[in-house]
Amino acid sequence: MNELIDHRLRRSWTAEAADAAQLPARAAKWLEQRIGQMAPSAAPSAELTVKIPSSNLAESAVEALSEVVESANVLVDDAARLARATGLSYLDLLRRRSADAGFPVPDAVVLPADPDEVQAVLDACVKHDVGVVPFGGGTSVVGGVAALSGEKTSVIALDLVRLDALVSVDTESRIAVLQAGVRGPEAERLLGERGLTLGHIPQSFERATIGGFAATRSAGQASSGYGRFEDMVTGVRLATPRGEWKLGVAPASAAGPDLRQLAVGSEGALGVITEVSLRVRPAPPVKRYEGYALSGWEAGAAAVRDLAQNHVLADVTRLSDVDETEVSLALNAGLKTTALRKYLAARGVRRPCFLIVGWEGTAHDVAVRRRETTRRLKALGAVRVGKALGESWRHGRFGGPRQRDMLMDRGVCVETLETATYWSTVDELRDDVRAALTASLGRAIVMCHISHAYETGASLYFTVLTARDEADPVGQWQRAKAAASEAISGLGTISHHHAVGVDHAPYLSAEIGKLGVEVLRAAKSAVDPTGILNPGKLV
Amino acid sequence: MNELIDHRLRRSWTAEAADAAQLPARAAKWLEQRIGQMAPSAAPSAELTVKIPSSNLAESAVEALSEVVESANVLVDDAARLARATGLSYLDLLRRRSADAGFPVPDAVVLPADPDEVQAVLDACVKHDVGVVPFGGGTSVVGGVAALSGEKTSVIALDLVRLDALVSVDTESRIAVLQAGVRGPEAERLLGERGLTLGHIPQSFERATIGGFAATRSAGQASSGYGRFEDMVTGVRLATPRGEWKLGVAPASAAGPDLRQLAVGSEGALGVITEVSLRVRPAPPVKRYEGYALSGWEAGAAAVRDLAQNHVLADVTRLSDVDETEVSLALNAGLKTTALRKYLAARGVRRPCFLIVGWEGTAHDVAVRRRETTRRLKALGAVRVGKALGESWRHGRFGGPRQRDMLMDRGVCVETLETATYWSTVDELRDDVRAALTASLGRAIVMCHISHAYETGASLYFTVLTARDEADPVGQWQRAKAAASEAISGLGTISHHHAVGVDHAPYLSAEIGKLGVEVLRAAKSAVDPTGILNPGKLV
Repeated sequence: MNELIDHRLRRSWTAEAADAAQLPARAAKWLEQRIGQMAPSAAPSAELTVKIPSSNLAESAVEALSEVVESANVLVDDAARLARATGLSYLDLLRRRSADAGFPVPDAVVLPADPDEVQAVLDACVKHDVGVVPFGGGTSVVGGVAALSGEKTSVIALDLVRLDALVSVDTESRIAVLQAGVRGPEAERLLGERGLTLGHIPQSFERATIGGFAATRSAGQASSGYGRFEDMVTGVRLATPRGEWKLGVAPASAAGPDLRQLAVGSEGALGVITEVSLRVRPAPPVKRYEGYALSGWEAGAAAVRDLAQNHVLADVTRLSDVDETEVSLALNAGLKTTALRKYLAARGVRRPCFLIVGWEGTAHDVAVRRRETTRRLKALGAVRVGKALGESWRHGRFGGPRQRDMLMDRGVCVETLETATYWSTVDELRDDVRAALTASLGRAIVMCHISHAYETGASLYFTVLTARDEADPVGQWQRAKAAASEAISGLGTISHHHAVGVDHAPYLSAEIGKLGVEVLRAAKSAVDPTGILNPGKLV
Repeated sequence: MNELIDHRLRRSWTAEAADAAQLPARAAKWLEQRIGQMAPSAAPSAELTVKIPSSNLAESAVEALSEVVESANVLVDDAARLARATGLSYLDLLRRRSADAGFPVPDAVVLPADPDEVQAVLDACVKHDVGVVPFGGGTSVVGGVAALSGEKTSVIALDLVRLDALVSVDTESRIAVLQAGVRGPEAERLLGERGLTLGHIPQSFERATIGGFAATRSAGQASSGYGRFEDMVTGVRLATPRGEWKLGVAPASAAGPDLRQLAVGSEGALGVITEVSLRVRPAPPVKRYEGYALSGWEAGAAAVRDLAQNHVLADVTRLSDVDETEVSLALNAGLKTTALRKYLAARGVRRPCFLIVGWEGTAHDVAVRRRETTRRLKALGAVRVGKALGESWRHGRFGGPRQRDMLMDRGVCVETLETATYWSTVDELRDDVRAALTASLGRAIVMCHISHAYETGASLYFTVLTARDEADPVGQWQRAKAAASEAISGLGTISHHHAVGVDHAPYLSAEIGKLGVEVLRAAKSAVDPTGILNPGKLV
């Protein structure tokens, strides 16, 4: 575990340094032309010593927790606490590059072995009035794992890494029960041994956990085919300060409001998710990914809307706008970009927007569905780019965070944000967010893509690159994020799949109403009367 | 309106008496062989005078409500009050056949014109401490509109019939906003003028309302294609004692729990739904329904499971068990049943289970999807019965309630109940419910069908026919219903699409946990601190 912790301090991702994306000289030059001169800063070294405040956890609480999980699983050393102090937002990474911890650090890390121990840990925390931050993969980009203590004098990070089991599989009902701490790849490995897959592949896949997916209403890159994570959840088991809570007895129900949908997205504020029952599918023997190009954003978005409203979305359907397509052409040395541009221009695509489409299933299923999708795509003016683009995206799709580390080393301010809205508002929302970011940041590349489409609307995912303001890097992004959030609020949701955490909490009331916030607070009071659960998050 | 009220007193359905199903002599004889001698009772006459208690609503409250909606829309006469006193369960209908109202009656009926007036009515009811039962189509079969006053001294029926407008249509996003009082046929007419459809066709379609569909998590007969009602809801507008509450800014969101799914299914206990934003679709130019037969329940259920898990369910997919198939053959004089039995037996189907499959869409879409469904059905041993069976079901599908009136006139105890569970439990749950009903009722026909299938499970819908116990007709059904509910509780949901109301409230805690009930109560307290909303329902 120490190796992992060191690694987390140094880089935001677990992959080997050798795998890290490299920025070709040509791409770096191109980037500087677009966003101006950058001031490279060395990557934080593995030996970086970060000063953190000493643990404030009362000795009696340490003893009580040690009784529950054995003392080896109550960690109070600096490295363990620091490793669970932040998520992976740009601001988190910025702060982690400093020698002074400008962020709260949990007073201890507690590692329960199973749902019963999680419950016992909560009981002890209630008794000793200790705040509890549930910790899964630590991939939150909205401050969801920030070690805020609220009104408590101490707070623990409740790391669920030991809840790593596949509990049961019901092959007839196609339901698997997984413990909350199982990470994406391990979930696929455990299910794959039984010929099954979950099909939930968000960019955080390599590190994020089943519990985290559920707590944040995650959406994977193949959500058009496999559904959002909440669509997969058939049941949830939570530990709460008032005892265990189990939900989910049928695929659908009219027995009052669907409380599963209250547990899913509760971000650790209504309970600690310990197990999740999930709809699974046979592992697909065939995966086919390919690329198309459409001319301009409007044509691209119209095509995705057409596919969604005619129920022929590919399992993966992802449309990049002109800027994102330009950047991927500029940064990707693998594609013969000049020839490709000429090829597309000859077919009327002068401002290309790349569309990645991917199908997974049996050969028959993929063939039938691909035929229907491509039939419509051709009618909509899409030009086939070929398998290489699809496969290139598929193999590079977890590379974002690594690329981000590398860009940060070179002095780039790089971050993403996302929203969703109804189709008739998609263009306005995209324009407004781009304008807000550009107005705040000055010279910046603002890219956008649709990665999740619905009959009634779509997500918009923005990636921003600008030269880091070395005088005030934190303020630079905070202002830009606030401007973007203001632009989003009222036109779309403040988050389509990143959750609320700390960063989006100020905008929740505008979205669900003051009554909505009061209902969430009332629900929280019912299950967590003393407010130990994830203080300062969600509500 | 008086005509409607009289009609409701006489028959449970609004259709003309001439349309009412007739029981052929041959069918009556067959029925008597199965369930024994019955004691026919005359249908209640239109002149039936039911004694009801006088209104208990304070004069000051009447005045305050009259100020909001004008006095013509505050009805305190017996007929108006009686017409909103019950729903359409078998027990409701039994009670309505008596001259003494053995059920609570609202103290007044209030008819607001729009969402603002609904809000003002609630404000007045808070001030005067009057209970409020929201009333849509009055089709609840679980006591959802029972005029319980709880701790209040008076209760009004808030009839939403005047909220009958199509508020707006966003064709690009395929969203229509409908007011809560719009009935099924009117919703389809309003949308049909714009070339659109909602596609929500439950058996209550002819009378039930948009608000009622949302409040009860309704599921239509084409839910496999169009989704359950909650799947169609993109936004909800509610009036609550704490003011208006609007939800829904995007097709999907990670901004905390999905509170739309708390509003949907709230059964008038968390607010009065005044408007619903709904995903709509183009009206399908082609509708194709046909029938198949499978040999025995196990083969039939396995076929439906196969279709669901391979994503080739028809829009309507409905499997009858052997008993339901027998009854439909016996009661339906239109089908040449002897020839059909021979035809099926020659193809190995000796214990036929009818499967109705129906597709709606463009000709191309229907052709493509039908090919995939029927390809699998044939591989699974299904024998095609033809279009006649499908069309016969489609044209008779709203006939159930009329048939029920007619059977009740002949001395039959006839009721339905429903549940849903995961596939691996479907057979056990069906067996247990059948056994419980038969043990309680003695000689009875217990039929079952699957009308809503999911990847992970299915609904089970039971129809019960037995000779009415004239000495204790209410107790006869109450005991049977309790036995069935006990059998359901723990194996499946207490309701797949009928909701909780009064009848299922005792079983809610077993399904969502004591904590779940407490969370609902806390949410209710947040929006309805004095408890005026639908007292005694849901929680």
